[in-house]
Amino acid sequence: MTPVFLLHSLDCAVCIPLPIPLMPFGPEPPQLLRQRFTYKGRKFAFEANRLRLPNKAEGEWECVRHPGGALAVPVTPAGELVLIRQYRFTARGRILEFPAGTLEADETPEATIQREIQEETGYTSDRWQKLGEYFMAPGYSDEIIYAFLAQDVQVLESPPPRDPDEDLEVVLMSPADVEKSIHTGELGDAKSICAYFLARPLL
Amino acid sequence: MTPVFLLHSLDCAVCIPLPIPLMPFGPEPPQLLRQRFTYKGRKFAFEANRLRLPNKAEGEWECVRHPGGALAVPVTPAGELVLIRQYRFTARGRILEFPAGTLEADETPEATIQREIQEETGYTSDRWQKLGEYFMAPGYSDEIIYAFLAQDVQVLESPPPRDPDEDLEVVLMSPADVEKSIHTGELGDAKSICAYFLARPLL
Repeated sequence: MTPVFLLHSLDCAVCIPLPIPLMPFGPEPPQLLRQRFTYKGRKFAFEANRLRLPNKAEGEWECVRHPGGALAVPVTPAGELVLIRQYRFTARGRILEFPAGTLEADETPEATIQREIQEETGYTSDRWQKLGEYFMAPGYSDEIIYAFLAQDVQVLESPPPRDPDEDLEVVLMSPADVEKSIHTGELGDAKSICAYFLARPLL
Repeated sequence: MTPVFLLHSLDCAVCIPLPIPLMPFGPEPPQLLRQRFTYKGRKFAFEANRLRLPNKAEGEWECVRHPGGALAVPVTPAGELVLIRQYRFTARGRILEFPAGTLEADETPEATIQREIQEETGYTSDRWQKLGEYFMAPGYSDEIIYAFLAQDVQVLESPPPRDPDEDLEVVLMSPADVEKSIHTGELGDAKSICAYFLARPLL
């Protein structure tokens, strides 16, 4: 692929072979016939690959290659849950979610969420418990969300600054109100719905 | 962008301006400063855009532009739930899910799922009820899943053929076993977890 210079002048760096690891081997990986295209985004990569699946079907599949995310269901000493109402450009508006963030390089899910909860909500906790993990969009993304329960959360005196592109407000709700908002559709964020129900037996 | 021919010769059609509608207007859409890049995939598009958000933050954000998906929680007359264990290349293996599919052009979610349930499971129903809808990955995808309950499902005498790239088997489970599998992690598909808990009060 020689005209790298030309692609740069088109402001289109996408065809440059990137050092993104190929689909890691797992119990039943697809056979990678040809890596057609790779785009390295801010927080994840996007690929289009020609694959042969275990049942021998061949075709081209796109995939978001995502480092994963970590989420917290934070509970105050009074038993309220800490949510955020966050602007999401994909939704063209603000949606209710539990605090969460994308794993950074070499960061464990625990470290990610312990950082994110402080940055997003100004709360902290030292009582953490894993709730579970789940695929968000296994048709086209390898993103896994690691969900945690954070109990007895405390307000930080000097919370760390938020990311400049994060536009959100903290919202406290009782578990009953969270459950009601799931059924009415007011809470329409899948990772948060999953985490709430995984946490419910422990609340 | 003149060297379209050259991009074709690189097997890289991605910088051709595509007739994909710009982010539709909603209550609080981002301001599209520059559509840097668009890739039209099999079932969805991928874009990288320079945006200005309502809080004036500017930056480049990637987005999967997805038509949406529809999912069913199918219940047999005996009260069992119909799931599928499906190969997913993103998971490099087989995962437990409720039957679901991507909306095709001009298809309503109801039409999609009434088609998909037949193709994927060989069951059909005429007792449908909307459970809810939710965003799967609002950080980078505008995909919404429309979830439905399908009661009194019946086996079709002549089920329609499956897509050749679908590699799956039908699994019947009691609601209690589904709930157990969610807590153990055996069922680790977010759209299915959400749908189960939305359906639970009606089971």
